Amino acid sequence: MKILPRSVEKLIEAFERLPGIGPKTASRLTFYLLHVPQEELDEFSDSLKNLKNKTVYCSKCFNIGESDPCVVCASLDRDESIVCVVEQPIDILSLERTGKYRGIYHVLHGAINPLNNIGPDEIKIAELLRRVKSGKIKEVILATNPNVEGEATAMYIRREVSILKAQNSNLNELKMTRLAHGLPVGGDLEYADEVTLSRSLEGRQEY
Amino acid sequence: MKILPRSVEKLIEAFERLPGIGPKTASRLTFYLLHVPQEELDEFSDSLKNLKNKTVYCSKCFNIGESDPCVVCASLDRDESIVCVVEQPIDILSLERTGKYRGIYHVLHGAINPLNNIGPDEIKIAELLRRVKSGKIKEVILATNPNVEGEATAMYIRREVSILKAQNSNLNELKMTRLAHGLPVGGDLEYADEVTLSRSLEGRQEY
Repeated sequence: MKILPRSVEKLIEAFERLPGIGPKTASRLTFYLLHVPQEELDEFSDSLKNLKNKTVYCSKCFNIGESDPCVVCASLDRDESIVCVVEQPIDILSLERTGKYRGIYHVLHGAINPLNNIGPDEIKIAELLRRVKSGKIKEVILATNPNVEGEATAMYIRREVSILKAQNSNLNELKMTRLAHGLPVGGDLEYADEVTLSRSLEGRQEY
Repeated sequence: MKILPRSVEKLIEAFERLPGIGPKTASRLTFYLLHVPQEELDEFSDSLKNLKNKTVYCSKCFNIGESDPCVVCASLDRDESIVCVVEQPIDILSLERTGKYRGIYHVLHGAINPLNNIGPDEIKIAELLRRVKSGKIKEVILATNPNVEGEATAMYIRREVSILKAQNSNLNELKMTRLAHGLPVGGDLEYADEVTLSRSLEGRQEY
């Protein structure tokens, strides 16, 4: 017996397609929305429809924004000589939340992942190298994720930039850095995995 | 610095309003949707807008459906003498998934919860008693949630139905039952809380 109205079923299916949302959560969210006033549903519905209409990719750093160049690239009080390389626009959000970073960004839109057929040409690495070649950049911070794909991507970029440096004498001052690995703040030594713990030993700092 | 385009921010806010979805999940879902084709966004958006347009409450059992009476109440092969009382329409979904229930339902649309100012008059108890009084029902299965509010609601209904039985001789045969408490299938005795374990002892069955 088909118990659910078609409209309810359709919304459940739409929610189920989202990452990390299973059939149970999808039904729970849908049944919750049945209790919500129609205006709120309309608002939600409009924000979904207009999500991409009003966003463009920045032609400089490939962040998403309302304008091109994006707010970070257009800002006058950001240090254009430091570029932080991230995998996704959402990573910029996390870095901005720290309030500690005053440089600009470069979004790769992915990481090298041979199992999913994503090679260096599928992500914005050539565009990064072009920016590096211009000679205006003093530091490239590799902030790809600390997992296999992110490390592979960071290593690939390090190699390519080294080749560039060897070829161009104006890049002599260029520095490459990688975000530190170590114990998460607020965590327990007891629960830290051995790889993290050994990286935090290697990276220990004077105190 | 406002990093996010307004349209992205708005969708994040809409997701955040959903139960169990925090700011991090809301951004993750929104950034995921940025990669989804516009047609899929439109479909999602339409299902949200039309969620309530095409659904009505069944005037008999208060389940949601496309028509009134709902598919369960309208069906000819359901036993109309057994009524299962649930808190929410979503509970019907869970019961139907068992494939073991052939009776009909009654949706209370809530549970008695004095802390939230929800008394017996705020939920569909009067409507249930009216159905019971008609004399066509042989069994009322109380399937409210096994928590404080659900138990209070079940106890309140039991008392009210007993009063009805005392007043009406045609209700002599009416039976009231409650879903069994006990160990969840696939669970570990070791991890069962003492209340559940003692209820499963009380309700032990010949084997």
